[in-house]
Amino acid sequence: MSDFFDLVHRQRAHRSFTSEPVDDATIGKLLDAAVHAPSAENRQPWEFVVVRDDAQRTTLLDFAEKAWEAGGRAFAEARLTPGLMADVEQGIGGGGYRDAPVLIVVCADVDRGLEVTVPSSIFPATQNLLLAATALGLASALTTISMGFTTELQHLLDLPAHVIPQAVIPIGHPAKPLGPARREPFEQHTHRDRYGHAW
Amino acid sequence: MSDFFDLVHRQRAHRSFTSEPVDDATIGKLLDAAVHAPSAENRQPWEFVVVRDDAQRTTLLDFAEKAWEAGGRAFAEARLTPGLMADVEQGIGGGGYRDAPVLIVVCADVDRGLEVTVPSSIFPATQNLLLAATALGLASALTTISMGFTTELQHLLDLPAHVIPQAVIPIGHPAKPLGPARREPFEQHTHRDRYGHAW
Repeated sequence: MSDFFDLVHRQRAHRSFTSEPVDDATIGKLLDAAVHAPSAENRQPWEFVVVRDDAQRTTLLDFAEKAWEAGGRAFAEARLTPGLMADVEQGIGGGGYRDAPVLIVVCADVDRGLEVTVPSSIFPATQNLLLAATALGLASALTTISMGFTTELQHLLDLPAHVIPQAVIPIGHPAKPLGPARREPFEQHTHRDRYGHAW
Repeated sequence: MSDFFDLVHRQRAHRSFTSEPVDDATIGKLLDAAVHAPSAENRQPWEFVVVRDDAQRTTLLDFAEKAWEAGGRAFAEARLTPGLMADVEQGIGGGGYRDAPVLIVVCADVDRGLEVTVPSSIFPATQNLLLAATALGLASALTTISMGFTTELQHLLDLPAHVIPQAVIPIGHPAKPLGPARREPFEQHTHRDRYGHAW
């Protein structure tokens, strides 16, 4: 299973996409991977809205841009590395995400799954989706910046009140290859039996 | 990359383990996969406590059993399918998890990552860990039932106040093979452009 470990090392957030289309069969493979993730009580509380419509995509990304302009950028400037800052700027402010032909809005149905278990049910599925995209050579990114606009997103996507958006994932073809992810080695964040006991 | 899609279909929650040991190098591979997941602002806010010590493992699982006895079982009886109920009963009440030689407690450092982005940062890493275990032929399960005992877990594991436990993952060898996961097809939960528009 070296392939899996290679895949995990290759998965990166893309913020530049080409406009090359991605067909329904391919999107289906990503979603099939997503729904095979574990969920609390096996409730599978996910709902996916696959947005291809131009007007819907534009409005969806306007929310991200609004959040960015209204304080997201200023907040991020103090926290992100310069490289990551430029990258995120390119995705949100620079229109990188707008080139992606598909946006997948991952939602949680809180009637089906308990609200307290939403995160541990939705984000494993999201990660399967991102890995599946990487496996198929597609570009993707996990974004949550527009989640401050829950009501507006629900209105835009006709979501019932019990279906809460959790993330927006642009999907497309990568505009440029990415190098390896920058991560601290796991040993720096691993403890033996008790916190503070070195691994 | 058919291997990845096969892996995703094979990943299941195990609730019966053998006592066969799992060495540090193997645990390291799981954690290396975990830390290559995406995280908000690339903050990598995870901390992992790998618990092998018998007394620590026992006390950790006592919390799960307490939560189960104190209402978890009664609550679950009304919600789970009979098959899943028997399975979870075996894991928590029946001591299945107690046979696992390793428990990995996944925590979030809320000084390092914003609390609001903890779920979208921690659970992708957790899913990488579970998939990595599956890839190596190991048994694992994502459990959150003892998360009601945050303070007690922090005390047991010497966690500082800003390090919050998120999940406990038993790791070991499977006591029995599992069939394919029971999931609803993704088409049942996928919408085109707007909720309610069939995929």
